[in-house]
Amino acid sequence: MSRIVLIGAGNVATHLGIALSKSGNEIVQVYSRTDNSAIALARKLDTEFTTSLSSINRNADLFLLTVSDDALSNVLKDLNVGNNLLVHTSGFLSMDALARNSENYGVFYPLQTFSKSRSVEMRTMPVCIEANSEKSLGILKSLARQISDDVRNVNSEQRRKLHLAAVFACNFANYMYSVAAQILEDSGIDFDILKPLIAETAAKIQDMIPLEAQTGPAIRGDKSIMDAHLKMLEQYPEFRAIYKLISTEIEESHRHFAVGKRTKH
Amino acid sequence: MSRIVLIGAGNVATHLGIALSKSGNEIVQVYSRTDNSAIALARKLDTEFTTSLSSINRNADLFLLTVSDDALSNVLKDLNVGNNLLVHTSGFLSMDALARNSENYGVFYPLQTFSKSRSVEMRTMPVCIEANSEKSLGILKSLARQISDDVRNVNSEQRRKLHLAAVFACNFANYMYSVAAQILEDSGIDFDILKPLIAETAAKIQDMIPLEAQTGPAIRGDKSIMDAHLKMLEQYPEFRAIYKLISTEIEESHRHFAVGKRTKH
Repeated sequence: MSRIVLIGAGNVATHLGIALSKSGNEIVQVYSRTDNSAIALARKLDTEFTTSLSSINRNADLFLLTVSDDALSNVLKDLNVGNNLLVHTSGFLSMDALARNSENYGVFYPLQTFSKSRSVEMRTMPVCIEANSEKSLGILKSLARQISDDVRNVNSEQRRKLHLAAVFACNFANYMYSVAAQILEDSGIDFDILKPLIAETAAKIQDMIPLEAQTGPAIRGDKSIMDAHLKMLEQYPEFRAIYKLISTEIEESHRHFAVGKRTKH
Repeated sequence: MSRIVLIGAGNVATHLGIALSKSGNEIVQVYSRTDNSAIALARKLDTEFTTSLSSINRNADLFLLTVSDDALSNVLKDLNVGNNLLVHTSGFLSMDALARNSENYGVFYPLQTFSKSRSVEMRTMPVCIEANSEKSLGILKSLARQISDDVRNVNSEQRRKLHLAAVFACNFANYMYSVAAQILEDSGIDFDILKPLIAETAAKIQDMIPLEAQTGPAIRGDKSIMDAHLKMLEQYPEFRAIYKLISTEIEESHRHFAVGKRTKH
């Protein structure tokens, strides 16, 4: 059982806070810059809150930074946790960003997309950990295992790559859903009709590689359909640009893939 | 029970053929241009095959065209089914593409992505039907209901829009997965680590609208991360162009969305 202070009260803090608390740890305090968020999360976790970094409770084992990467440097400027274990949850920032704040530091990066209104299956969620000592790494490992079955040692360099890949696989994939939603809305068609397709598209790559799972006009090189789609997109210049760019890349990537397959056999 | 001839022996023919056969219909013949495909599917369905359009068995209730849009006009040139019900399965082509081949025609469009090696949950899959008479529409509706619980009347104009939206939601989303896979592969990281994230990203929009589900640096307007990502992508000019374009569009779309929400309240 660890005593944990949550610094930040957004989606990551909420989901991790609840999971860590459920698995028997004590969230001793929540910090947020704004009253509302601090109070809301402290209430959920049945704990104290503060909106002042100078009032952070230093009597804890772990200080978990969940503020956005943008806000982090400002928080670190005013944060004093002594030499207690200080950990951030960012996919992007290097572990060393914390080196000036404590002798004991690390990273606890949950690779998942969190939204306020949705609970997430945590046991299958990869948690990427890193620390500046074996002892701290051990603490983070046992903590991570309490909430997930997939705990991995990932260094800062790899984590950055992972985070970049996640932007494509999650953020940009979701943007594709929203383009589809917009086109359907403008045609008076309910977005619901696409849900089984979206579910199956994601399910496919659970056991196929994405290049093999690719379907559609671009991979078939079907110029007449692609030209017709570009014409249909004339009222959406931005979607049209995306359609053009990605279709070209799908055709390209398939050429390389096909050549690779041929040379392998 | 209908007697059905499958014209085409690809993924759509295979999945629909198996489903229709399982639900009690008789697949009386499979046509494919190539011996191999024709034989393979005919064997799966325990039926006859032909590679010659002039040998199509006309003693059937329904002729289901599953060849690619590219190939369809060539097939129609040589296809004679009398005035039996002739139906295509294309999301893109208008129903009237069949008007010269039979007095009874329609569309049976399964909105799903099919791959040879994967079986698909059909009961939740939308089947979009259209026909040139009430009688034919009734036949297609009862057939569709045998394999799916989600049967919809969709006209050619709407079906084209739907098909375009599906390119974004399925084909382009899958391309985003393959970009992520490439970045990870080049960094020696197993693609497996992204699978829970991809599953959750798709699961989210089952009960949230995509604009609300959007996360990531672009929606937060986090320029420093986006600039760093663009720098990391210097070795991948094509991924870099995609990153730039989509991030800009996410920022834009969110601005509109946020304004829309403000003006609503």
